[in-house]
Amino acid sequence: MTATTSAEVSTPDALEADVHAAAARARVAARALALLTTARKDDALHAAADAVLASADAILAANSEDLALAEASGTPPSQLDRLRLTPDRVDGIAAGLRQVASLPDPVGELLEGRTLPNGLEIRQLAVPLGVVGMIYEARPNVTVDAFGLTLKSGNAVLLRGSSSAARSNAALVGVLRAALSALDLPADAVQLLSSEDRATVTHLIRARGLVDVVIPRGGAGLISAVVRDATVPTIETGVGNCHVYVHASADLDMAERILLNAKTRRVSVCNAAETVLIDAAVADVAVPRLVQALSDNGVRVHGDLPGLVPATENDWADEYLSDDIALAVVDGLDAAVAHIDRYGTGHTEAIVASDLAATRAFSARVDAAAVMVNASTAFTDGEQFGFGAEIGISTQKLHARGPMGLRELTSTKWIVQGDGHIRPA
Amino acid sequence: MTATTSAEVSTPDALEADVHAAAARARVAARALALLTTARKDDALHAAADAVLASADAILAANSEDLALAEASGTPPSQLDRLRLTPDRVDGIAAGLRQVASLPDPVGELLEGRTLPNGLEIRQLAVPLGVVGMIYEARPNVTVDAFGLTLKSGNAVLLRGSSSAARSNAALVGVLRAALSALDLPADAVQLLSSEDRATVTHLIRARGLVDVVIPRGGAGLISAVVRDATVPTIETGVGNCHVYVHASADLDMAERILLNAKTRRVSVCNAAETVLIDAAVADVAVPRLVQALSDNGVRVHGDLPGLVPATENDWADEYLSDDIALAVVDGLDAAVAHIDRYGTGHTEAIVASDLAATRAFSARVDAAAVMVNASTAFTDGEQFGFGAEIGISTQKLHARGPMGLRELTSTKWIVQGDGHIRPA
Repeated sequence: MTATTSAEVSTPDALEADVHAAAARARVAARALALLTTARKDDALHAAADAVLASADAILAANSEDLALAEASGTPPSQLDRLRLTPDRVDGIAAGLRQVASLPDPVGELLEGRTLPNGLEIRQLAVPLGVVGMIYEARPNVTVDAFGLTLKSGNAVLLRGSSSAARSNAALVGVLRAALSALDLPADAVQLLSSEDRATVTHLIRARGLVDVVIPRGGAGLISAVVRDATVPTIETGVGNCHVYVHASADLDMAERILLNAKTRRVSVCNAAETVLIDAAVADVAVPRLVQALSDNGVRVHGDLPGLVPATENDWADEYLSDDIALAVVDGLDAAVAHIDRYGTGHTEAIVASDLAATRAFSARVDAAAVMVNASTAFTDGEQFGFGAEIGISTQKLHARGPMGLRELTSTKWIVQGDGHIRPA
Repeated sequence: MTATTSAEVSTPDALEADVHAAAARARVAARALALLTTARKDDALHAAADAVLASADAILAANSEDLALAEASGTPPSQLDRLRLTPDRVDGIAAGLRQVASLPDPVGELLEGRTLPNGLEIRQLAVPLGVVGMIYEARPNVTVDAFGLTLKSGNAVLLRGSSSAARSNAALVGVLRAALSALDLPADAVQLLSSEDRATVTHLIRARGLVDVVIPRGGAGLISAVVRDATVPTIETGVGNCHVYVHASADLDMAERILLNAKTRRVSVCNAAETVLIDAAVADVAVPRLVQALSDNGVRVHGDLPGLVPATENDWADEYLSDDIALAVVDGLDAAVAHIDRYGTGHTEAIVASDLAATRAFSARVDAAAVMVNASTAFTDGEQFGFGAEIGISTQKLHARGPMGLRELTSTKWIVQGDGHIRPA
């Protein structure tokens, strides 16, 4: 590594060194954060909320610059909306920080403990993970949400947002860091990595030993790239190819209500329904009715039946995240479970049925983070589950599965106390 | 992929296809295992124990072949001992299976649950991980231990043992598979991958979507290679550069007893002490005494002090796993924690002290799976902790940290029950 001045363009090695240096500073900050009392952390969250409100004008001005650039480069309106901050949204960001302050502190919780027959006292406590890397796309509110949740759980965070939100994120992180410094807390608890170069992502996810976990939030492409190339442990989030299975015993009024809610409430979210599976036993009545209801609500229905948009393999496998849904007729519960086994992403799978044996079998056999019985897939959400806030929805089986709140941002530590105990040979 | 007959040498692609086919069979088996009652699983474990005993002669004969080959190729005696099975050890293997049968079933445990304000009932249940890959070194008993623990937790297992134990492992797995088949359970719950080619490991750790987790057990080289190249989530295990810190307030009799136990009880295990840190405040008395005690017990002491084997950076960073220890004098608790932060592997760190503030500070600040206060590092062990059995000791922070028992071989699933609930916009 040769020294570079700030006037020079960063070489690849210099970029890696920058990320590693940020991670090293984050580790130092994390050691301090791990020991903070709940009161100190909550004070910091309220101070950060105050600072966000006090700096609203500057934050909105930075956001306007991001928006102008995005508009000039032809960004579609839905993405502009995700990027846009308004006075109301800034209020919401500050309120989110206060909400996290109101939640119980997950750190230090006694998870297990006993006195062993030899008199050793063992206790398992929740401790912070350490340094958390977040990789995410346009919404600037994620910047502050991630800060709030990681700070409350005693972690330092390295943020790698999208370049389209670079000015908004820089303004927000600047405010958060100043708020921490004003309370004599380490500003390096939150750092924004450069979004100019994709290589920042690579260096972050390969900073093993410096970063304890990376959480990618975004599209399937981002998540699979991170998971493939990371050496740091990752938590896969948010790809949801969710199914609604209408069992032979379903109340079709209920099925229609749940299906429409699951598909049309918000089409761009990971818990939206992407495929409806209709039991052959009720297909004659259910298919025309549900196709009509979907069409009436502006949804294009893809499938192998006459009158539908012809389906390819991708229709079954991918998330549409749009006003589209795939529809298949399946020959009973076994076939529904087999279809979900093949195409599901392990996020949320729903059954509509009045038969108890069917709902029990579906719940037991479907392999997913969440199974909905006579309820919309839209309920898979940290706030809906009562966690108060959510850092993402895990679709992997290790560490956390489903909505992740503060507890999922902790690890554990065993403390063993003796009075000179040695272990027999 | 071109078809190959069994007479042809496997091409790299064919080897990958073999591993993937085994994983696909394991997934089918895992779906069935996930639904078994505890009684069925326990019956299978007892049947497997009976079968191991009934086939003891064949197992010992296969092991003799492995031993003869290993001896002929100049394997050192300590490794031969790890490979060797005896009638007593076969009895121990069978007893281990019965022990696992006696443990509570982790699957189906209700971890959390509540009724939400809207009337939705949410429950979080423990469920199997699915397909577990185990990569391990010589000891053939690990083959059966891993089978027992994964079966009890409802998982299928893909075993990749060392080539030196290939015949022993094949004999054991053959016995286990036959025992399952005799009970109409899927034999593919346990499969032995070929140990002839190192590429099997690569294919296993990159079979994302087919394998749910890989647990490497072995030396630091194996574990870091697996962690670096894996796309399947992994649990890092067992590298323990453990420290014993002798605080200024330590009872030196106790310190000596704990240090000797932690270093000399068994030098090849991950919870053995590799460095002793002595507080400068008591160095004058403690250093000569502890060096003498170590030397008297056949331990070579490395360090920067006169009379010790001169230390290099590796002495502080690496596990000896031998009759060696590094010794450093540190300037108080801060310096001890800083040394451990720099060189520790997050396994087990011990303090010997009578001062309560010192033990509290050390416990809170050291970042490790286990902290021992006035107790030997040797206690970090699933059986010692009362788990009944252990699949490994995790040194990572995600999913599991410290000794892993049956519970750590499970994931979770949310079951949400409503009566037509939809989520408001």
